[in-house]
Amino acid sequence: DLPFVLIAGPCQIESLDHAMEVAAALDEICGGLGISWIYKSSFDKANRTSAAAARGVGSARGLDILAQVRARYRCPVLTDVHEASQCAPVAEVVDVLQIPAFLCRQTDLLIAAGRTGRPVNVKKGQFLAPWDMANVAAKIASTGNENILLCERGTSFGYNTLVSDFRALPIMARTGYPVVFDATHSVQQPGGQGTASGGQREFAPVLARAALAVGVAALFIETHEDPDHAPSDGPNMIPLRDMASLLVRLQAFDRVAKSG
Amino acid sequence: DLPFVLIAGPCQIESLDHAMEVAAALDEICGGLGISWIYKSSFDKANRTSAAAARGVGSARGLDILAQVRARYRCPVLTDVHEASQCAPVAEVVDVLQIPAFLCRQTDLLIAAGRTGRPVNVKKGQFLAPWDMANVAAKIASTGNENILLCERGTSFGYNTLVSDFRALPIMARTGYPVVFDATHSVQQPGGQGTASGGQREFAPVLARAALAVGVAALFIETHEDPDHAPSDGPNMIPLRDMASLLVRLQAFDRVAKSG
Amino acid sequence: DLPFVLIAGPCQIESLDHAMEVAAALDEICGGLGISWIYKSSFDKANRTSAAAARGVGSARGLDILAQVRARYRCPVLTDVHEASQCAPVAEVVDVLQIPAFLCRQTDLLIAAGRTGRPVNVKKGQFLAPWDMANVAAKIASTGNENILLCERGTSFGYNTLVSDFRALPIMARTGYPVVFDATHSVQQPGGQGTASGGQREFAPVLARAALAVGVAALFIETHEDPDHAPSDGPNMIPLRDMASLLVRLQAFDRVAKSG
Amino acid sequence: DLPFVLIAGPCQIESLDHAMEVAAALDEICGGLGISWIYKSSFDKANRTSAAAARGVGSARGLDILAQVRARYRCPVLTDVHEASQCAPVAEVVDVLQIPAFLCRQTDLLIAAGRTGRPVNVKKGQFLAPWDMANVAAKIASTGNENILLCERGTSFGYNTLVSDFRALPIMARTGYPVVFDATHSVQQPGGQGTASGGQREFAPVLARAALAVGVAALFIETHEDPDHAPSDGPNMIPLRDMASLLVRLQAFDRVAKSG
Repeated sequence: DLPFVLIAGPCQIESLDHAMEVAAALDEICGGLGISWIYKSSFDKANRTSAAAARGVGSARGLDILAQVRARYRCPVLTDVHEASQCAPVAEVVDVLQIPAFLCRQTDLLIAAGRTGRPVNVKKGQFLAPWDMANVAAKIASTGNENILLCERGTSFGYNTLVSDFRALPIMARTGYPVVFDATHSVQQPGGQGTASGGQREFAPVLARAALAVGVAALFIETHEDPDHAPSDGPNMIPLRDMASLLVRLQAFDRVAKSG
Repeated sequence: DLPFVLIAGPCQIESLDHAMEVAAALDEICGGLGISWIYKSSFDKANRTSAAAARGVGSARGLDILAQVRARYRCPVLTDVHEASQCAPVAEVVDVLQIPAFLCRQTDLLIAAGRTGRPVNVKKGQFLAPWDMANVAAKIASTGNENILLCERGTSFGYNTLVSDFRALPIMARTGYPVVFDATHSVQQPGGQGTASGGQREFAPVLARAALAVGVAALFIETHEDPDHAPSDGPNMIPLRDMASLLVRLQAFDRVAKSG
Repeated sequence: DLPFVLIAGPCQIESLDHAMEVAAALDEICGGLGISWIYKSSFDKANRTSAAAARGVGSARGLDILAQVRARYRCPVLTDVHEASQCAPVAEVVDVLQIPAFLCRQTDLLIAAGRTGRPVNVKKGQFLAPWDMANVAAKIASTGNENILLCERGTSFGYNTLVSDFRALPIMARTGYPVVFDATHSVQQPGGQGTASGGQREFAPVLARAALAVGVAALFIETHEDPDHAPSDGPNMIPLRDMASLLVRLQAFDRVAKSG
Repeated sequence: DLPFVLIAGPCQIESLDHAMEVAAALDEICGGLGISWIYKSSFDKANRTSAAAARGVGSARGLDILAQVRARYRCPVLTDVHEASQCAPVAEVVDVLQIPAFLCRQTDLLIAAGRTGRPVNVKKGQFLAPWDMANVAAKIASTGNENILLCERGTSFGYNTLVSDFRALPIMARTGYPVVFDATHSVQQPGGQGTASGGQREFAPVLARAALAVGVAALFIETHEDPDHAPSDGPNMIPLRDMASLLVRLQAFDRVAKSG
């Protein structure tokens, strides 16, 4: 039972400077606390609520920025893929491929991701039961790639609301694959602002505490120095300045969960 | 307020002979009842519960079969697309493109479908509120294509279960686009059989009656001569032999709904 | 398959004059349409969202008013009971006892209601599966009283929202007991206005149409000449002036549902 | 931020001997760990799934047994009330009155409980949003009694299933009243065994860990020396022999949650 790994970063890749600044802050915080971490950021937001919303810097520019973050801070990097054809080129740059929740049953995408040989972090669909993630993992494992992470990020609960069912963590862990808890998307309110998703940022630390106490291999948190002005997921991202104190507390829960 | 259009056919394209047989039966039934109909069948089941499940005949063979059905029975044909690059070639053959529910927020796919100029039938995601379909439609409409249909096919309700919220029909109709009710996927039990989705076929006619009474532009029903041995969606498809009597009854509700 | 019976009236008994006025209007409407009807009104709202909300005229005054409505319009009357000790005295005056949804598993109340020998209309709890109403009915039937009606009034769907699952109607009908659909409470938004429940009155006719098409023995609708100023359930009651045109349409769906 | 209080005991009062045995075990465990505890047991199970299920020893015998437990182990005792008239006599014997979840909006019951002056533990209805518990508490507080505890015990999530939304704990805490987490009823599967409720006992410790990490004033756990043969709630009660090790772990989470 190793200490939890942190997967963190800004939702979108905004620019090289911005990526480097957030990475520098995370490097300092995690270095000080002895937390292994993976930098996460997206080069394309492919399923925004509205077509008018910012999509991101695109694949070529985004991968270049991730490569520079990786080289400078010697941290693994993670990004998400949306079509099967993206998997191979993305895998040349990033350490972990991520499958978005809405796409977690797209067989071709899962298999293409598996074939890269890279670890694959699959978000559980908001429409999926935790036990059904075994079928999702089996699609990836059919390629011979067993480096699979299963990630809880909330389940549909009425309209425009998600609920975090913490039974899902031990249920997904029965597969034998490491389980990740995504604390910031779990407090999203999909479509809750009309033409954008809302969020309840104040509950992300609450759910993160619960997840660490139940026991997870990794924690996923999107963070930004100014969430209220971020181009996406602002309502649920954690301010960068709050990360250090939050992580200290979460480490304490993690230690209790993994002791004895 | 025109009479409802029927969108029907077997879930998967199994073979030319099979497609022709089902189309012949539908042609006879709908011809006798004066129902306009669209033939629906999929060349690829891209998001099966399990990777081991049958995917279908593939794109080239599938489109060829749909073209033959279309020529022989002079009926419009509909099929679903899964990646943006499929839209243009599929649109050369079929009359209506369909966006699967899991993919209803994938901006590139919606825009590629819109750009074909063909009518686009979008299934509402099981994770989406009906009012959020206005944003989905706006993505397609941003291409200048206003031939959009919005389709209700059930909403997540606990695990492995969907519920049909009939308020969704008038809510989606506020967009001004025609509303479709998918009676057979609405009774699906996603993942409910472990490595396959289950279904409650007996409730499809019940929900279809409700939808026609509320008022819809079109009704979507998957049908098969032997659902229990169909390669996909067997537990929720309506036996072909039950279609005629069901449609007679549904026409009566449709007439009342659209009178006065 | 008899035509549907209408259970209707104002949520609360407000005064003798008010009760008589609403009853007069319903008597005229239903008489003209040939609809059998039961007058419904409550003498006590025992579970208001807030303690500050109006409770009603109380038991003695309320039963007296119901008796006068019954005598004047020769219609059966229905009211709800909240504690076992109320059942016998209420049954001396009213024709049908009603069990509120929150109380549908209170064994003593069900048995006391059953022992009166009067028909008992049990609302399905917002927290209950339709198949579990068989156990509820069995509690009443254990008294030898088989005059039981099972009433759908919406199921919890996220917070402050209900959804109407129309599969519940045929599922409850398997018990052999008549099934009622409550169109106005099904569009309630429990607690949705902070210190009161909200409602979506505009969807009550929508759900009523669906219910009639699926097939029910009775339809429950609360109505008021001025819902926006009613002491309870205003946001979901149907204006009395809209009842006649609504019922005409519902009769047409009922005839189709029960033909052939 | 005081350490959590434990509310524990067998679901039903089975006999004096049984009550004393469970109390003795809890007294020893909690004494050893320095945990303040309250003995919980019910004299009447008033809302069983089926009328054929065991109801309990009744009020007179039950209160006598609770009084003896209280005298012998010098522990406060808690039991639930179902009708307003029970509150005063029950309050003469027990230290804390409990309002069952289904009854949490019954104004008369809440007010009668409040008037006893005893602390009142109200279970949040499975159909209620956490913010709506402020209205419930206000009904009790209207009597001048501010000794109120608000208890989370799961929310309806589809049929026959509950989900624990841990956002509910801080939301209810905004009222200023202490918040309790009921770990064993939260894993109930209402009606899930046809004529009885099922349960997922294995997840009660999981949810208890999450609750302690989020932060609660008290933890509610039903326990039994042989849950599989208990007359009620067997599927979700924790075996008495597992309590000590569970509590040790929970204390560690509680300390972290309340430090700093």
